[in-house]
Amino acid sequence: MASTLSKHTLFILLAILTVSRIAQSSDPDILSDFIGPTSTNATIDGNFFTFMGMRGIFNDPNPPNFKVTKASMAEFPALNGQSVSMATLQFPAGGVNPPHTHPRSAELLFVVEGALEVGFVDTTNKLYTQTLQLGDIFVFPKGLTHFQYNADAKNQATAISAFGSANAGTASIPTTLFTTGIDEGILAKSFKTDVATIQKIKAGLGAKA
Amino acid sequence: MASTLSKHTLFILLAILTVSRIAQSSDPDILSDFIGPTSTNATIDGNFFTFMGMRGIFNDPNPPNFKVTKASMAEFPALNGQSVSMATLQFPAGGVNPPHTHPRSAELLFVVEGALEVGFVDTTNKLYTQTLQLGDIFVFPKGLTHFQYNADAKNQATAISAFGSANAGTASIPTTLFTTGIDEGILAKSFKTDVATIQKIKAGLGAKA
Amino acid sequence: MASTLSKHTLFILLAILTVSRIAQSSDPDILSDFIGPTSTNATIDGNFFTFMGMRGIFNDPNPPNFKVTKASMAEFPALNGQSVSMATLQFPAGGVNPPHTHPRSAELLFVVEGALEVGFVDTTNKLYTQTLQLGDIFVFPKGLTHFQYNADAKNQATAISAFGSANAGTASIPTTLFTTGIDEGILAKSFKTDVATIQKIKAGLGAKA
Amino acid sequence: MASTLSKHTLFILLAILTVSRIAQSSDPDILSDFIGPTSTNATIDGNFFTFMGMRGIFNDPNPPNFKVTKASMAEFPALNGQSVSMATLQFPAGGVNPPHTHPRSAELLFVVEGALEVGFVDTTNKLYTQTLQLGDIFVFPKGLTHFQYNADAKNQATAISAFGSANAGTASIPTTLFTTGIDEGILAKSFKTDVATIQKIKAGLGAKA
Amino acid sequence: MASTLSKHTLFILLAILTVSRIAQSSDPDILSDFIGPTSTNATIDGNFFTFMGMRGIFNDPNPPNFKVTKASMAEFPALNGQSVSMATLQFPAGGVNPPHTHPRSAELLFVVEGALEVGFVDTTNKLYTQTLQLGDIFVFPKGLTHFQYNADAKNQATAISAFGSANAGTASIPTTLFTTGIDEGILAKSFKTDVATIQKIKAGLGAKA
Amino acid sequence: MASTLSKHTLFILLAILTVSRIAQSSDPDILSDFIGPTSTNATIDGNFFTFMGMRGIFNDPNPPNFKVTKASMAEFPALNGQSVSMATLQFPAGGVNPPHTHPRSAELLFVVEGALEVGFVDTTNKLYTQTLQLGDIFVFPKGLTHFQYNADAKNQATAISAFGSANAGTASIPTTLFTTGIDEGILAKSFKTDVATIQKIKAGLGAKA
Repeated sequence: MASTLSKHTLFILLAILTVSRIAQSSDPDILSDFIGPTSTNATIDGNFFTFMGMRGIFNDPNPPNFKVTKASMAEFPALNGQSVSMATLQFPAGGVNPPHTHPRSAELLFVVEGALEVGFVDTTNKLYTQTLQLGDIFVFPKGLTHFQYNADAKNQATAISAFGSANAGTASIPTTLFTTGIDEGILAKSFKTDVATIQKIKAGLGAKA
Repeated sequence: MASTLSKHTLFILLAILTVSRIAQSSDPDILSDFIGPTSTNATIDGNFFTFMGMRGIFNDPNPPNFKVTKASMAEFPALNGQSVSMATLQFPAGGVNPPHTHPRSAELLFVVEGALEVGFVDTTNKLYTQTLQLGDIFVFPKGLTHFQYNADAKNQATAISAFGSANAGTASIPTTLFTTGIDEGILAKSFKTDVATIQKIKAGLGAKA
Repeated sequence: MASTLSKHTLFILLAILTVSRIAQSSDPDILSDFIGPTSTNATIDGNFFTFMGMRGIFNDPNPPNFKVTKASMAEFPALNGQSVSMATLQFPAGGVNPPHTHPRSAELLFVVEGALEVGFVDTTNKLYTQTLQLGDIFVFPKGLTHFQYNADAKNQATAISAFGSANAGTASIPTTLFTTGIDEGILAKSFKTDVATIQKIKAGLGAKA
Repeated sequence: MASTLSKHTLFILLAILTVSRIAQSSDPDILSDFIGPTSTNATIDGNFFTFMGMRGIFNDPNPPNFKVTKASMAEFPALNGQSVSMATLQFPAGGVNPPHTHPRSAELLFVVEGALEVGFVDTTNKLYTQTLQLGDIFVFPKGLTHFQYNADAKNQATAISAFGSANAGTASIPTTLFTTGIDEGILAKSFKTDVATIQKIKAGLGAKA
Repeated sequence: MASTLSKHTLFILLAILTVSRIAQSSDPDILSDFIGPTSTNATIDGNFFTFMGMRGIFNDPNPPNFKVTKASMAEFPALNGQSVSMATLQFPAGGVNPPHTHPRSAELLFVVEGALEVGFVDTTNKLYTQTLQLGDIFVFPKGLTHFQYNADAKNQATAISAFGSANAGTASIPTTLFTTGIDEGILAKSFKTDVATIQKIKAGLGAKA
Repeated sequence: MASTLSKHTLFILLAILTVSRIAQSSDPDILSDFIGPTSTNATIDGNFFTFMGMRGIFNDPNPPNFKVTKASMAEFPALNGQSVSMATLQFPAGGVNPPHTHPRSAELLFVVEGALEVGFVDTTNKLYTQTLQLGDIFVFPKGLTHFQYNADAKNQATAISAFGSANAGTASIPTTLFTTGIDEGILAKSFKTDVATIQKIKAGLGAKA
């Protein structure tokens, strides 16, 4: 009986997890003030609406490599249905956030330390760039490829970003193209280059041969 | 002729402003990468996507009273259609941001200096409060009344807020109720108090008698 | 075995309720004609789409105090996903519906008996008022604070309201601010008054000390 | 000069009307509290948010034929962007509102006088019917064909309907199919009948031969 | 025990099916890249994103009667949340797709073989028609009644349709009105004809008496 | 006067064009059956809803290079507000559609001639691939990078794609990254390679030095 029970319970829990993953897949215009936790006996108080995962930014303000700390729905479930999220971006001297897209939101980037070179390309293939100073805000429109770069050789830079979705998503282009196993022949044809060049880039990015 | 011309031009400009105000009244899911400026000969480059109005935060980091600096569609037209905006909130020691609502968005508040007492009330009249430390983020759900308070007697606090709308809007409750001319008898009945108490509150808020 | 069974069933029912609460948290643009009841063996017929809870309006047409009868998703589950709901508002002579907001919808109010003083305040702190006659309709824009008052000393008034959401939600401002336990010092600072005045208002509204 | 001026003005007005028709074609999630009138020198006060066109219901409560009085965006421009509208339906004894659809909204129908037979058909071709009593509310899901009928031989019925769009739109099926000039052969094939039967129905509906 | 177990399992499965039907009832703006299958141990690979049900079009290119093959969410679950679907329409010589509506989407019809007479009626009762040649595309706006007809006496026609919803839904008007059991008296009144004519049409459409 | 007039007219026309571009930037949930042409004296008939630009596919079925023919809002204005569009993709033997994104829609691709290798990468960097046969349909989720390749050395392939937006937009990654002028140093750092490799790829893609 015990094993039957636990099998049952496991099955139910799996079912709930599956369904709730689906149920949480809908962003705007929820029909309640907020969407509470899925566990049946959870108490909802102020802690549910609080995210402490960004405290580390202030404890470790100088990471050696480019570092993103996110406050999106995965880390902060109370964002479900609220259509907003944030991230902190820390750039060491010379650090780069490679070209990437957010499939589900625009990004509003606020430089709170140092300075940044930024840019994005629209669907007519026009590049828009800017050198942002301390206190500047830049908007990267929804779904377009963009990047940030700290050109300063000595000082780090920090930015706080806002997104109009609880889960904007991020797809880094170098990783997407060259470390996921896309056929090298297709990549070579796509970039009008030879397979050796594709392999060289893959190697640099640490992709498996 | 000159006056005719200018009358014409004025009329046209008014018409354009009117129409564009309407045209800009639609938030999400635009059908283009972005919505450019309305003036006919504007060049769109990186400057259009840059907002410098927040630099003042770093130049005047210690305002004597509670101060909000916004980067929403009114100040930063490139946000039109991007469904995101930001604001910086500066609290002197003991400073309060009175109870208010944002009709069009949730708010995600990130404490970047000091500490804050925060709270909101949901539509079942339940109060949720929290004491936020440096680095904490709190989410105020869409459309609900909320407030922030810097309980520290000596140190100021600063927060950066993100909104999931280019124009979240703000309605401060003390101002909305007591300085806009709502009939004092209706207010007294609503608050189950006497007109004298309503008048006392109005006077404190600087409302005209 | 019986207790195991019932524990199981209870757990499953709780799980379903939890998940369905989440699932029902998404308003517009459903992918089906309608969203049926969550119980597994329910027959869906015309009764599912019928709400009889408003019959009481006609049986008890003269309530002594201001009274709202709602036909929203909580009372009428078939509204889930249909983005519309209704309410009937009954005002005795001199009755008031205190300032309040609906976080998720505009309200369209139709006076079907008597007359009403109404008003709302927009986010620029402008007050819009009107004296509505029998047959008049007034629109309170989304998320803004508004009120209604029956100024007639002898005759009652009745209104039927429509909302563009299955669950518009209601937050009464006197209740939200003064009966939910918000710190009295924060309220006093917010209203630029003293704690004694806050306590007087709280007492009038029946809040616990 | 005068004619030039008026030609200019006419052209401009046409342009504004054209553009504003387009601009107003976007329903939900506006970026402002409301969308004001398009004329450039209009004052916006409480009258803008008031619709008096429904007063006639109370002045002429017994129309001889089925009659709909609408408060939608066309009659009440302040509804633009507020995602809600209303209508009053008056049924004489034996009166029918023929099968029709609303392409942009569900309908919530509230019987405020008499009784009504109602029904709708979903996309699986299942018919849902109900006999509504005084005070009952029925929901017709978005976009589905539905009808109402006052089966009482002596007494009229009245209903107030709410819609979750400022312009739900109405397409009456008898009119749509048989009075708009659709090729009779196509109709005969579609209904698997002969052209003579199509022509008989058309004649009954007053369609031109 | 076995029967208890299976009863349990059945109950759970029904519950999951019920809940997942609800959960899948939300179309746009999902918060994830895609919505995976509901079964708990499913592997998601390229097959999940592939629909093979349209291969039959090429294997059976000449069906004797009008035939629709759909790739919507019911047949192709990966479409859930992607807001798009397709269908192939095959018309024998003289074949007709009777007047119908799609409650949740516009339709974009691409003629890939033969030619088609098409039309739709808007909410002002204006009919728009066109004779489409090979390669032509026609858009039927959201929710409006429309039809297609292959006027060619010898050659078949084929069209591929796109919809802006994963489940546009279809309601055929002859079927909706005359084979679902709507009261014949209501239909006769609605079409301003006699019950005998209604019964004749019903018989032609194969409806039960 | 004439020049003044024409200057005026030009100014007005530019203003209208500018505003209407903005006005048309809002996709879903329009408040009308459709959005008509912006010119003030245009007649709207069946032609407005017809797109003939795809006829060329059947006249030139064997283009030497990969070729996309679009039926989106830019080419077919009647799609404005209808949330759907189509495209035809023609692949010669060995032809590739390089990795790209559509910022505003998922894509549903229907192979109507030949066979195709397809794939996409999600935001967890997982690659999903498939070999599509004649008649197969594949869905590329919203905003994710994807590609198609005709691996057949002799036979061409053709696909018809559907999008859930009137203007899905396309950003080809090789073009976006390597032909728009993004700083070569930033690209080299992003791809963890040297500037020479970046320059080699740029040269292959025909970018200016």
